[in-house]
Amino acid sequence: MKILVTGFDPFGGETLNPAWEAVKKIPDTINGAEIKKVMIPTVFYKSAEVTEKAIEEFQPDYVLNIGQAGGRFELTPERVAINVDDARIPDNETNQPIDVPIKKDGAAAYFTQLPVKAMVTEMKNAGVPAAVSNSAGTFVCNHIMYQVQYMIDKQYPNIKAGFMHVPFIPAQVLDKPGKPAMNLEDISKGITKAIEAIVEFDGKPDLKMIGGTTH
Amino acid sequence: MKILVTGFDPFGGETLNPAWEAVKKIPDTINGAEIKKVMIPTVFYKSAEVTEKAIEEFQPDYVLNIGQAGGRFELTPERVAINVDDARIPDNETNQPIDVPIKKDGAAAYFTQLPVKAMVTEMKNAGVPAAVSNSAGTFVCNHIMYQVQYMIDKQYPNIKAGFMHVPFIPAQVLDKPGKPAMNLEDISKGITKAIEAIVEFDGKPDLKMIGGTTH
Amino acid sequence: MKILVTGFDPFGGETLNPAWEAVKKIPDTINGAEIKKVMIPTVFYKSAEVTEKAIEEFQPDYVLNIGQAGGRFELTPERVAINVDDARIPDNETNQPIDVPIKKDGAAAYFTQLPVKAMVTEMKNAGVPAAVSNSAGTFVCNHIMYQVQYMIDKQYPNIKAGFMHVPFIPAQVLDKPGKPAMNLEDISKGITKAIEAIVEFDGKPDLKMIGGTTH
Amino acid sequence: MKILVTGFDPFGGETLNPAWEAVKKIPDTINGAEIKKVMIPTVFYKSAEVTEKAIEEFQPDYVLNIGQAGGRFELTPERVAINVDDARIPDNETNQPIDVPIKKDGAAAYFTQLPVKAMVTEMKNAGVPAAVSNSAGTFVCNHIMYQVQYMIDKQYPNIKAGFMHVPFIPAQVLDKPGKPAMNLEDISKGITKAIEAIVEFDGKPDLKMIGGTTH
Repeated sequence: MKILVTGFDPFGGETLNPAWEAVKKIPDTINGAEIKKVMIPTVFYKSAEVTEKAIEEFQPDYVLNIGQAGGRFELTPERVAINVDDARIPDNETNQPIDVPIKKDGAAAYFTQLPVKAMVTEMKNAGVPAAVSNSAGTFVCNHIMYQVQYMIDKQYPNIKAGFMHVPFIPAQVLDKPGKPAMNLEDISKGITKAIEAIVEFDGKPDLKMIGGTTH
Repeated sequence: MKILVTGFDPFGGETLNPAWEAVKKIPDTINGAEIKKVMIPTVFYKSAEVTEKAIEEFQPDYVLNIGQAGGRFELTPERVAINVDDARIPDNETNQPIDVPIKKDGAAAYFTQLPVKAMVTEMKNAGVPAAVSNSAGTFVCNHIMYQVQYMIDKQYPNIKAGFMHVPFIPAQVLDKPGKPAMNLEDISKGITKAIEAIVEFDGKPDLKMIGGTTH
Repeated sequence: MKILVTGFDPFGGETLNPAWEAVKKIPDTINGAEIKKVMIPTVFYKSAEVTEKAIEEFQPDYVLNIGQAGGRFELTPERVAINVDDARIPDNETNQPIDVPIKKDGAAAYFTQLPVKAMVTEMKNAGVPAAVSNSAGTFVCNHIMYQVQYMIDKQYPNIKAGFMHVPFIPAQVLDKPGKPAMNLEDISKGITKAIEAIVEFDGKPDLKMIGGTTH
Repeated sequence: MKILVTGFDPFGGETLNPAWEAVKKIPDTINGAEIKKVMIPTVFYKSAEVTEKAIEEFQPDYVLNIGQAGGRFELTPERVAINVDDARIPDNETNQPIDVPIKKDGAAAYFTQLPVKAMVTEMKNAGVPAAVSNSAGTFVCNHIMYQVQYMIDKQYPNIKAGFMHVPFIPAQVLDKPGKPAMNLEDISKGITKAIEAIVEFDGKPDLKMIGGTTH
């Protein structure tokens, strides 16, 4: 099995992105699966181009995109990507789309093919706080998750894909009182555990367990 | 113009639901639009039946469902409903679906037809904290929002609809330290202002303004 | 009985201070007690001068100073004032003392003479979120609470005094996501209820009830 | 130089206390200072007896007590201890004092002799979130801080002492959504850095820098 794992470059004034820093640290092989790691730009559309090029070259079975969600307390596999760009801040090439569909011929949303409940369970079993998220926002993180699903829908029906958000690391919150952080080693361990769940649940249904949100 | 506004009954151990309490207090006519108020049960599917019955009787131009989002700080018009029920707690008739599609022949998601940015602007102009939300959760709130959109998709193409979450009121958080609350009068004022925006923007595009989230 | 109630003027870039706005709205007589309302400046030492002048003129039995605590969820009577000024931001006359004692011959701290548990109980019974606080910070709020206690210690042994913090009002948090707010009417009602408790418990011990914090 | 460092045992239903777990991991010698580590019970008065016994045996120059503050985001050296026990929950021997002075002949409060600003600076320079706190609560943490200061006041005038709170670790928050956590290695590194600051600032005034709170 081959798994493409991407992490974004820094954005929003940060000097590093814990997503890419953590992805760099995961093993090259996880439970027998070959891992390919690629840094992608925090730029609408260009992030998708770089990801698609990596898909073509590496021919993965799974794609897992990782991004930073400053302010979240846990690692959060995303359930769904929606067909809209609505940028609160400019991306790294100063694009700031407001309420624009990502793909005119795309679905309103795509659900991930990843076993998000099993991923959360595996991470928590390893002592890493984790929870299913029902919104990847409307910035480049949701964008890339949507774009990869669109590629699957139109071109690569055998690929399974999904997105996971990770918190700030401590060095990023030194002057952000009230913002939670997670140690980089813990983030990296969590990603590794999530990938172990992906490998283990390949071809099987996700765990049937409570993990929704009332709002 | 006719606008159907619903509010849920109490759930999750609460003795009241600020959604319905606030809906009861809004005027019967707002900027010339006739308002019909209906309480609906916090029950999967049954909430949709009650709403559909009200739609058939009242023949509204707009449907606005209101629900409680304990823990949120603002009034939050929802951008999108997704095709899944995943209940963290049982509904008021002990149903607790886990990761089940709401409608097998429904879209993965439906975007609201309401001018959510204008609604937020109007509420904030009136001094009421408000923000666009990108997830209505996976409980009965998302369920009813999805169901009404599904009805529009299949049966009532001329209706426009959407959902708005409201915070706890102070009486609900007396023993919930760290949970925000909003005065019932303020919630009711906010709903009224949101409806004013709906009336004002009828037939016009929503405001083009920043209001997305990075995650 | 005569009760002097003060509220600070706006500081820290705000255009109003909910403390003074709420104090203005309380009745002139509460449970038979005559209320005198005075706005005091958010300035180290000068706030004490203005308060002392009002004490000399009004000859109150009780002094209750009210101040804004942006970010708090409840009305919080303060238990104790400490002998230090340590300003995170400048006061309204650009003073910014760092780790300086307020009074060289003062105690390290003074406990309030007010029945803080009864005040919290009365406020919660009226539906207003409230909790005892164990720190008034190290800015002008703690300063005035300490100064009044120092006056009691040195000059006015028959006066009883204390301080209560109040949250932001909604208009102040429109562009502060994640900050709680409380309606001005609710703040004013809470202050009134707290004063009712002061009158009722005059000459009696405070309620013996759980209300501490583990940290 | 000799420094006594204590950590509490688990309380409040937790199976471990990150304070003691972290203290165990710090070096036995820090910048030339000899470190003695002692676990103390989360019990009013008994915690002070165990600490005093260790003081008598070890004859330290400094005492640093460490305790858990579940819900805090940073390592927080405490500025002051107040003369009151007010327990929100029972201690580990079911004592639950309500609004009782710790020592009838003690001061209302004692300020720490530790260089809290320098400790915060050293920790942040090492990438560990830290902030000065102005309240150690009213449970056993404040109790032990007060008790050691009282011992200094009455018996051991040459000792300098203080208290530092530490956050939950990730394993403790797996089922506590919205609660921050800090990796145990980071907590331990932070304590070590704080002690380095204590050693470095021995005999010198604390750093004169902004670090207060408005409330």
